[in-house]
Amino acid sequence: MKIAYLGPQASFTDLAVRKAFPDEHQVPCVTIPDCIEAVIEDEVDYAVVPLENALEGSVHITVDYLFHEADLSIVAELTSPIQQHLMVHPENSGGERRIEKIMSHSHALAQCHKFLHKAYRGTPLEQTTSTAAAAKYVSEHPGEKNAAIGNELAAKEYGLSISHENIHDFAYNHTRFIVLHKKSHPLAIEQNKSEDKTTLMVTLPKDRSGALHQVLSTFAWRQLNLSKIESRPLKTGLGDYFFLIDVAHGMDEVLLPGAISEMEALGCEVKMIGTYSSYMLDQ
Amino acid sequence: MKIAYLGPQASFTDLAVRKAFPDEHQVPCVTIPDCIEAVIEDEVDYAVVPLENALEGSVHITVDYLFHEADLSIVAELTSPIQQHLMVHPENSGGERRIEKIMSHSHALAQCHKFLHKAYRGTPLEQTTSTAAAAKYVSEHPGEKNAAIGNELAAKEYGLSISHENIHDFAYNHTRFIVLHKKSHPLAIEQNKSEDKTTLMVTLPKDRSGALHQVLSTFAWRQLNLSKIESRPLKTGLGDYFFLIDVAHGMDEVLLPGAISEMEALGCEVKMIGTYSSYMLDQ
Repeated sequence: MKIAYLGPQASFTDLAVRKAFPDEHQVPCVTIPDCIEAVIEDEVDYAVVPLENALEGSVHITVDYLFHEADLSIVAELTSPIQQHLMVHPENSGGERRIEKIMSHSHALAQCHKFLHKAYRGTPLEQTTSTAAAAKYVSEHPGEKNAAIGNELAAKEYGLSISHENIHDFAYNHTRFIVLHKKSHPLAIEQNKSEDKTTLMVTLPKDRSGALHQVLSTFAWRQLNLSKIESRPLKTGLGDYFFLIDVAHGMDEVLLPGAISEMEALGCEVKMIGTYSSYMLDQ
Repeated sequence: MKIAYLGPQASFTDLAVRKAFPDEHQVPCVTIPDCIEAVIEDEVDYAVVPLENALEGSVHITVDYLFHEADLSIVAELTSPIQQHLMVHPENSGGERRIEKIMSHSHALAQCHKFLHKAYRGTPLEQTTSTAAAAKYVSEHPGEKNAAIGNELAAKEYGLSISHENIHDFAYNHTRFIVLHKKSHPLAIEQNKSEDKTTLMVTLPKDRSGALHQVLSTFAWRQLNLSKIESRPLKTGLGDYFFLIDVAHGMDEVLLPGAISEMEALGCEVKMIGTYSSYMLDQ
């Protein structure tokens, strides 16, 4: 079984894939669309990409690509703890060191905003395509005296020394990764299962005030709990949105089909993105 | 009157500020928190920062900083068209040119995703802190054969040649900028006024299913239209959100105060971010 993931090696997605699919063939891809396209073009069976971080919110390119471009299903969700460390080249470690520049993915930089503001105010920050890419750059340019922010695996993989551990601002830092597949049947994984979920993307009828209220009514009177609702721009104009809705309920024969039919009768377009189990990965 | 804006010079925010406040003293700041802090610390009277782009959605650092860190009010909104162009150093313009790297702000790169995928597949992309910073870098490094994506003002300011015009993927590309101030009284601007709005941030009571539905009911039965609703993580755990709600209605004596009181009675925390007019800037 081949699994594409958002690389490079030692990214947080790699960490999650190693835990959830230790024995499968893992294929790193450069971007999230590349991961998704690899499934569409049958180069791999599954793709694992980040969907949402507890601090930074949704990964928009994932949500938008699933809405606008791809016709794939979520077949499982992996929730993984995220710990960020500051790491430097061993040549620049210890003693009185001055860091010229701190590099990482924009989400990792944002997750450590307060630490950076306090300990490294004025030090230039540079965004990279991933935390692992930052670690790789630092390992290859010891003369530049840069630091990277990333996970322990990246420090190990690229031979860097961790100078500050756990520098993320909020203790509760988790990321949800989704496993995407062409077919919609749920995938069972040997990890702690937490709950069943169904993800829908709903476009409201235009120019009807109170339509979102009606949509939520279809869930509320059935006592279907929503674990997430988020608006995303339709890209047709400011104020035009679709809604990403996670229902804390697996697909059944009566309740969810009834809610979906009602929303459609109200003039909504409903795209079913998947019904699946959520798994909590160990630290 | 001093106005801080998200710089550097020739950024899209600069363009909006030049149109809305042509005669005022304009102070560029490096980051969005820097702009906001400049108001808090009385270094300037107002700050202008981006809040939302029609394609990429909310600018999270603005929303989160207003919720978690700052106690400022929105006193006006400026909506401005966004046109992205590809620009190179004049030495590298014309003839058979090969671009080594394309640089811009992550939102600008995302807004031109399809163009880049089609015309420059495989060319490395590099994120910069702003579109203007990318233009500045390209102007200062003619030997590197890079291109920048940004606005016309940036091309002019940094002496670059536009090689492709209007490369953004969706024709409707606008950004909402907000004007922030310490006091909450609305600011009148000599531009086309489009509508009055009120922005609220609402935190739902924990563990009560259907609470969002109740919140929307308080608006629906009063026929108060919402022009936006969006969830943002509270940063306390996956699944804990607050909601950013734009009501298409200025503050009044009866309807909005009634809705706010009802939400509070339901156990919600309501933070009023501003009641203000929205202005549409010319191209």
